[in-house]
Order: sequence, then C-alpha cells, then structure tokens
Amino acid sequence: MNGREVPVPPRPARPLVEGERVVARRKEGESYLLTLTRGPTLIEGLGVLDLSPAIGSEEGVEVPLAGRLFRIFRPSLPDLVSQMRRRAQIITPKDALSLLYLAGVRPGAFVLEAGTGSGGLTLFLATMVGESGHVVSYDRRPEHQKVARENLERSGLLSRVTLRIQDVTHGFDVREADSVILDLPEPWRVLASAKESLRPGGYLATYTPTFNQLEQSVRAMREAGFEGVRALELLERGLHVGEGGTRPEFEMLGHTGFLAAGRRIA
Amino acid sequence: MNGREVPVPPRPARPLVEGERVVARRKEGESYLLTLTRGPTLIEGLGVLDLSPAIGSEEGVEVPLAGRLFRIFRPSLPDLVSQMRRRAQIITPKDALSLLYLAGVRPGAFVLEAGTGSGGLTLFLATMVGESGHVVSYDRRPEHQKVARENLERSGLLSRVTLRIQDVTHGFDVREADSVILDLPEPWRVLASAKESLRPGGYLATYTPTFNQLEQSVRAMREAGFEGVRALELLERGLHVGEGGTRPEFEMLGHTGFLAAGRRIA
Amino acid sequence: MNGREVPVPPRPARPLVEGERVVARRKEGESYLLTLTRGPTLIEGLGVLDLSPAIGSEEGVEVPLAGRLFRIFRPSLPDLVSQMRRRAQIITPKDALSLLYLAGVRPGAFVLEAGTGSGGLTLFLATMVGESGHVVSYDRRPEHQKVARENLERSGLLSRVTLRIQDVTHGFDVREADSVILDLPEPWRVLASAKESLRPGGYLATYTPTFNQLEQSVRAMREAGFEGVRALELLERGLHVGEGGTRPEFEMLGHTGFLAAGRRIA
Amino acid sequence: MNGREVPVPPRPARPLVEGERVVARRKEGESYLLTLTRGPTLIEGLGVLDLSPAIGSEEGVEVPLAGRLFRIFRPSLPDLVSQMRRRAQIITPKDALSLLYLAGVRPGAFVLEAGTGSGGLTLFLATMVGESGHVVSYDRRPEHQKVARENLERSGLLSRVTLRIQDVTHGFDVREADSVILDLPEPWRVLASAKESLRPGGYLATYTPTFNQLEQSVRAMREAGFEGVRALELLERGLHVGEGGTRPEFEMLGHTGFLAAGRRIA
Repeated sequence: MNGREVPVPPRPARPLVEGERVVARRKEGESYLLTLTRGPTLIEGLGVLDLSPAIGSEEGVEVPLAGRLFRIFRPSLPDLVSQMRRRAQIITPKDALSLLYLAGVRPGAFVLEAGTGSGGLTLFLATMVGESGHVVSYDRRPEHQKVARENLERSGLLSRVTLRIQDVTHGFDVREADSVILDLPEPWRVLASAKESLRPGGYLATYTPTFNQLEQSVRAMREAGFEGVRALELLERGLHVGEGGTRPEFEMLGHTGFLAAGRRIA
Repeated sequence: MNGREVPVPPRPARPLVEGERVVARRKEGESYLLTLTRGPTLIEGLGVLDLSPAIGSEEGVEVPLAGRLFRIFRPSLPDLVSQMRRRAQIITPKDALSLLYLAGVRPGAFVLEAGTGSGGLTLFLATMVGESGHVVSYDRRPEHQKVARENLERSGLLSRVTLRIQDVTHGFDVREADSVILDLPEPWRVLASAKESLRPGGYLATYTPTFNQLEQSVRAMREAGFEGVRALELLERGLHVGEGGTRPEFEMLGHTGFLAAGRRIA
Repeated sequence: MNGREVPVPPRPARPLVEGERVVARRKEGESYLLTLTRGPTLIEGLGVLDLSPAIGSEEGVEVPLAGRLFRIFRPSLPDLVSQMRRRAQIITPKDALSLLYLAGVRPGAFVLEAGTGSGGLTLFLATMVGESGHVVSYDRRPEHQKVARENLERSGLLSRVTLRIQDVTHGFDVREADSVILDLPEPWRVLASAKESLRPGGYLATYTPTFNQLEQSVRAMREAGFEGVRALELLERGLHVGEGGTRPEFEMLGHTGFLAAGRRIA
Repeated sequence: MNGREVPVPPRPARPLVEGERVVARRKEGESYLLTLTRGPTLIEGLGVLDLSPAIGSEEGVEVPLAGRLFRIFRPSLPDLVSQMRRRAQIITPKDALSLLYLAGVRPGAFVLEAGTGSGGLTLFLATMVGESGHVVSYDRRPEHQKVARENLERSGLLSRVTLRIQDVTHGFDVREADSVILDLPEPWRVLASAKESLRPGGYLATYTPTFNQLEQSVRAMREAGFEGVRALELLERGLHVGEGGTRPEFEMLGHTGFLAAGRRIA
C-alpha cells in the first residue's frame, strides 16, 4: 500500500513580507493585529514597535518593545475573530462553521450572504472560500457595512468580498452562486430570489434567533422547493481543567440561533 | 463607498468533465457517488445508468434510468460525508468543523492527523485545505487506512492526502505543519513530537471520548508549553418543524467527544 | 447551639403488614410489585412465591422462590415509576418533579390535574401530597383513566386520587385548589376555569411538547392575570462510569416537554 | 367506573393564624417573609406594616402600607427558596428535586444530609418529608450551620430538622434512615458509615461538582455494595416568550453538579 502513497508536497519557506497583516503576540490573551511595515507601529497604551526585523523572517520571530518581546505570526482565523470590532452581536464560531457546512461552502466557492452585520460570518466565509473563491455580502444599513469593511480590511480579506449596500428583498443581483446564507429577520421574504441566484445543487442556509422565525423559514423553504431541509441548533459547553479536577464551565451561552438549510435541486 | 467596491469576479461555466466524481440524485435520501464515465455505470439494485449525456453539461443535468430521472451534481461535503463507508465510529460534522477551527485549518494549510480511522475527519480536512493544501494522516492499523483510502478515493480527495501506516508514538516524520490533530486514545504520549512537527504559531487539537483523557490531554498540553489551551464540547439538537408545530427532536446524541486545543508559540 | 438542637424523633419499628404493596427484588432490574398476602403469589414466568414469612418482618427480609432469594421492600417512588404500565408516553421524573415544584405541590396539598394520561404525573403527585393531601385528576378518555386507575391501585395510591372522566374545557368542578397542572394539548382553553379553581396564592403549571403550545400558553397565562409566569425546559444527561473512564452517555432524550408556571394572586 | 370514584375530601377553611410564617407580596418580584403578629412589623426601606387584619383571614387578604397594598400568603417552597440567605453557593431546584427523587425522599421519610451548607437542600428536604418526616443535617463548620439554622427558622421548618455540628467522616450517629444525601467534597470517605445508617432498601445520593469526584463516588458506591448505581446531570434552559417571538434565554448556567445514587439492598 505504501507504493501508492501520495508524496508530501515540498513546503517552501514562506517568510513574512512587507505589507501583509500580522499578529504581534506578547503572551496569552494579549495580541495585536497589525500591518507589517518598516516604519514605527504604534500600539495604543504600549508604545511604538519596530516591526522591520520581522520582514523576511519566518513566523514566530521575536521583536522587542519597551523591554518586552513580541512574537510575530500570520493571523489565524481564531486570531481574526478575537480581534473583530463589532457593532451588532457577532455570530459564534460553532454556528458560523455549521452554516458553512450546511451551505456546502468550501475553497473556491462563490457565496452570497445577507445581511452583512459586523462581518463576523463574512470573515469565516472569506477565509474558507480561499483565494479562488468569492463572497458577495449584502446589507441595507451603510453603518453596518462600514464596520464590516473595516473588519475585513484589518483582516486582509477584503479583496475576496464584494460588499453591497442593498436591500435583498428587492432581489439579489448575482447568479450561479454555490451557496446563499441568510442572517435576516425575515428570510422567507427573499427565498424566491435566493433560489434564482443559486446554481442547481447549491445550498441555502438561514440563521434566526426565534423558533417562530425558524418555523416560518423552514416552511417557506419547503414551499419554495428546496430539498432535504433540516434545522438544528448547537450548544457549546466549555470544560474547565483545574487543580481540583475537571468540570463543565459555569458560564454558558444558553442560546445563539437556529440553523436551517436546504438544497436547490431543480 | 460603492466606488471602493470589490468587483465580483467572472464566473466561468464549469461543465462536468469525464472522470470526475459526481453524485446522482433521484430524490431526498437517495443518491449515489459515481465516477462520470461514458460507459454504463451499475447502481446496485437499480440498474445501469448511462452518464454520458452529463459529460460537458452543467450541474443539475437529468439522466434517465428505468423510467426515473436522476440529477447529476458535483458532490458537496455533506454528500461525501453521507456516502462514507465506515469501519470505526465516524466523527460528527459539528466536531470535525470545530476541530478544524480550533486547529486553525484553512485553504492552503498543511495538516497532520493521527489516527486516520475511517477517514471521516480526513475528508473534512482534505476538503477544507483545498487544492493548495495537504494532509498527512497516520494510523498504525492497516485495515483502518484501507477503509480511509477507499473513502478518500471515492470522494476524489486522495491526491490531497498522504496516508501513512505508522505509530506516531515513535514520532511524526514531517515538520513545519500548520496544524496537528490527534484523534488517539492517549494523545499525551505524542505531544512532544507533535510540537516539534508544528511551525511556530501552529495549533494542536485533540479529540477524546472521556473526561479522563481530556483532563490528561489538557494538562499535558500545558506542560508541553502549548498556549491558550482550551477545552469544550458541542451538543447538536435537531429541530422538527411539523404540521402540529415546532419542537426539538426526540432523538439526540448525548455525547460524541471532548475537544481541546492549544498553540505552539515558542 | 447544641442546646437548641431539635431532638431526633423516635423511629418506631415499622414491620411489613398484610395487604400492603411491596416490591420483591431479586437483583438489579428484576423486581416485582406485589400485594403482601398469606396465600401463594404467582410471579409470571418464575413460579409461586410464599410471602407469608415477610408479614411482620422488617423491610429487606428474604423470601425464597425456586432456589433464589427475593428481598421484600416497601416500594419507593422510583420503584413505582419503573413498574408503571403505560398507554400514553409517560412523563420523565425530571419534568414531573419540576412541575411539582413550579406548582408549589408539597405534603398536604390539594391538587388538580388534567389530563390524567397513564397516570405517570398522578403517581408523583399522589406520592408527594402524602396522606394528608389529595389529587383530583381529569381526563375525558375513559381508556386512559382505566390505565391510570390500575397504575394507582397497583401502587397503593388510589385512595389519594379522585379520577374524573370529564372534559375540563367545560370547567373544573372543584375549588380552593393549591395547584392546577395541565398536561393538555390546548391548555389556554381552560385557563379561566383553572384560575377560578385555585385559591389565592395557588399555582398553575403547564406541560406542552411544542414551542407553539408553550408560547400560546404563556401568553394566555399572562392575559389571564397569572403572575410571575416563567417557562423552562430540562435536559437530562446520563453519565457513564466505566473501566475506561467517565463520559456522558451516548443515548439521550433530546426533548420531552416545555414547562410553564404562574401564580394566581388576585 | 364513577361508582368507584374516591370522594374529594372536605377542604376546611384554613385561616391564617398568629405566629405562623407568611409572605407579604406587593407585586411581582417584591415579597417579604414575615411572622404574622399583632404588633407592627418593620420592612426595611419600606416602613411599618400592620399585619393584624390578616390574622384569622384567608390567604390573599390585603394589608395596606403607605398607600400600597400587600397580599398575605402562606409561603410556598419557591417563596422560601427565593428568600434564602446564602453563605455558600446554593443548590438549584432542579438538582435538589432530583436528589430527593433519586434518594427516595417522600412525606414521612427520615433523611440524613451532609453537609448542611446554607441549608438550601435542607429546605427542600424539610418541606418534602412533611410534618411526619424528619431530617438530620450534619456540617462540621459552625458558621454554615448558623446560616442554615436562620434560613430554616425563617422558613418555619426548623422543627423538622436536627442540625448537628459534626464531621461525618467519623460516622453518622443515627440509624434506620430512609435516605442519606451527601453534598461533600469527598463522599467516598463516608460511604461505609452512610450505608450502616441506612435501613435495607434505603437510598444514598451524592452531589459533586467535578467529573473526578463523580467517578470516585460512583466507583466507591459500587464497591460498598450499593445497587443500581446511576449518575446524571440536569441542564435547565429558560425560555423567553416576548413580543418578537419565543426563544431559549441567552443566560444559562452551564454547570451545577453531578448527581449519583444507589440503593442499599443487603
């Protein structure tokens, strides 16, 4: 069987380059999302960091600031999420990930999203579609798109996202999408145009806070001819491993949202 | 702000090509993972399907079989998951997705996994790293890797995965990984070599069924110098929207596994 | 402080008496609910038991049957629950107990219940109101009340329960109740008469399977002037302590019912 | 079948009597636990209440204070719980109720409890055993028992409870208990003496915060010969019925404690 082994591809060195987004991390819980530049970089409340030694180095390189050492990394998705500025309530990773899955999102996918909100889900989408994919995100509220744009720009992901200030109850203006994800109060009002925007085989997913919205969404999806419609919710429970033993954490979010999804077949 | 809008990239037609993997779908719950060929394709218990009209067509094209119509699609990740053959218990999507997230996996990532099992998590990894990423998956049991190889081959993802029949307690043989994911009974035994295999900034994630294993894993990760170590579990609850109203589903999986993750900084 | 200690009351011997209900228990999971009589007692599939040596003995006394020993006990509430015959789906202990609590049921209470179903909740109520309390249980379906009557009779609790074959949408016929518990499809249809049946300070509780029923119940309770209306659900998760360690059990009931309760003040 | 109907017992009037504990309730969420006396009753921050008109009246009678009306009721168990003063973390009703059930507690039962803590579980026990039952509660910390004593006295339940300042690792000093409930850090240290204190057929229940304590308790219970040992946890999820629809509440307690129970047979 080893004769059929797929060879491990070469891993070329990937030194940090000027202009890319990086995370400067001092120790647990203290990290800053920055652009890697040769000039001085101000970190509010801490001082000025000289990042130039990091340019051309590998990830993990140490840079000093006022007697402390910062390590420089490319930002991971968890880094980006923790650094988001939020206007609206932001989606939890568990829900963002499951919406992605239920909506069939993967590298190369072409995804429509409404509404944009603070861009929390957009960040997940833009990361997961990769460089070969694209996201078009709609919101009718300019102030939301402004926050989302900033978040995406800071995360280095804006080039993968088209942000449209547009009320999708008047329709989406893009076709042949692989996935449509609706984080709207009344998703059932846009199902017809969402379906038209999907290629055959594409998925629609909705995310709603109340059971009433979930119910109406699921019924409307069935009526609109979506197939395999299913609905679920996810509960995340932290686990605390301490000196005295292990137990679930006391704090827990009792509710985030209900997910539903179906597929356009015909 | 519209002046700064990122243009929607062109969406070239992507007709189905001979030799690629497709799903033939008749109706909900009845679909078949096939290779698109010109010759006759046998579907056990149903008959012989002539897929040649689908070659060069767009997704969603209809193909007849014994008076029924099948629609042909490129397989989505949910399609692949539902078509898996399993030897061991297979990981749930909620857990696979969160492990991916906690381990910082994204398009282009280079990921190590142990053990392979039936290749359930491998399927998620191979999908999400995309064409530019790679997965090396270790298992010391040849019979597991055989099932995993078949699953990956049927899914059209084998070229992204190097399968190694190897006991990782003797160490990983690859370096500069972005992520290491351990689905092993005793992950603490391989933490030292797992850490060496990670690039600075890379993530380690573990998946274990008992609290005892979780506890020992978390303690060992802290001792091995992983930072930001956290642990959690996810509960999925289906929701039933029926004629009589909406309620959570009666059937529920009470436990799947505990997730833990940390980051190699130094 | 010890000088103010409440003395432990004397614990008189309470030998088993002829005619009372007992449980004959051979080993875990194998026990039988019987009446303590001097004559032979048939246990289906096992043979004939002579319980007469148990009369006048303390609980735990051993009685032989065909070479095996059975121990004789007074039945506990868990014993009674496990021995119930059921026609309808039976309420889980967690829900029965919380309904009792939310409805303010305690020893001496006078409680109305509708509908009776198989008498599962009635069993809890009759046990918890004690000898000085009473339960009136309504159901319009004679076949349900027949099963409930048998269950209560077998449990030795029938003397505490008045079973009425009556459709309570036409009103309850008893007043000054401490608690009313509604396990009905449309509890909102009987709230007005339920409120009239309650003494000031008494509690109403409802138990419904769908979100829609819960919502309509809660709104109707508020409109009917019930105070402190609250709603909740309980999830029970078994824990498995095995040789390999401890974990939550895989099997779990994902949903039983929603509880709501409020109080009649004015 | 109506001919066999158990008659509803007469419900004699039960006017409020001087000296008993009452709740004065103004409106939702504002209530005071008081003793019904003829003299003036001070409510801190509100003024002086003259409760004498309530003596001899039925529950629900209105009494004025500074232009507001208070209604006077006998306290329910939920009233008592909400009025508790706590030193330690107090047990949730869902857990208290299930411990009661698992330990077979019912009216007339004779129950041992260790440790007393703030008396939260003691309050449930003293209520549910009724006037014919009794609770002996042990705690080695005098300051805990002081708070518990005050809580029980304010609740009018002290006469049903013997409070002992005693370390039960040296043994219980009472026999023939129906139930023993252990809310201790190391319940396994007292299992032998707990078993001796139980009558045959009696139940032991434990309540512990960590997996490790649960595991050790369950193993020790099995080794000590307890039968039918089971373990579980309960999650309570509030439901919010608002104008915009119904959803689970955002706030939720992620963990309270693990319950385990078994029965002394031999």
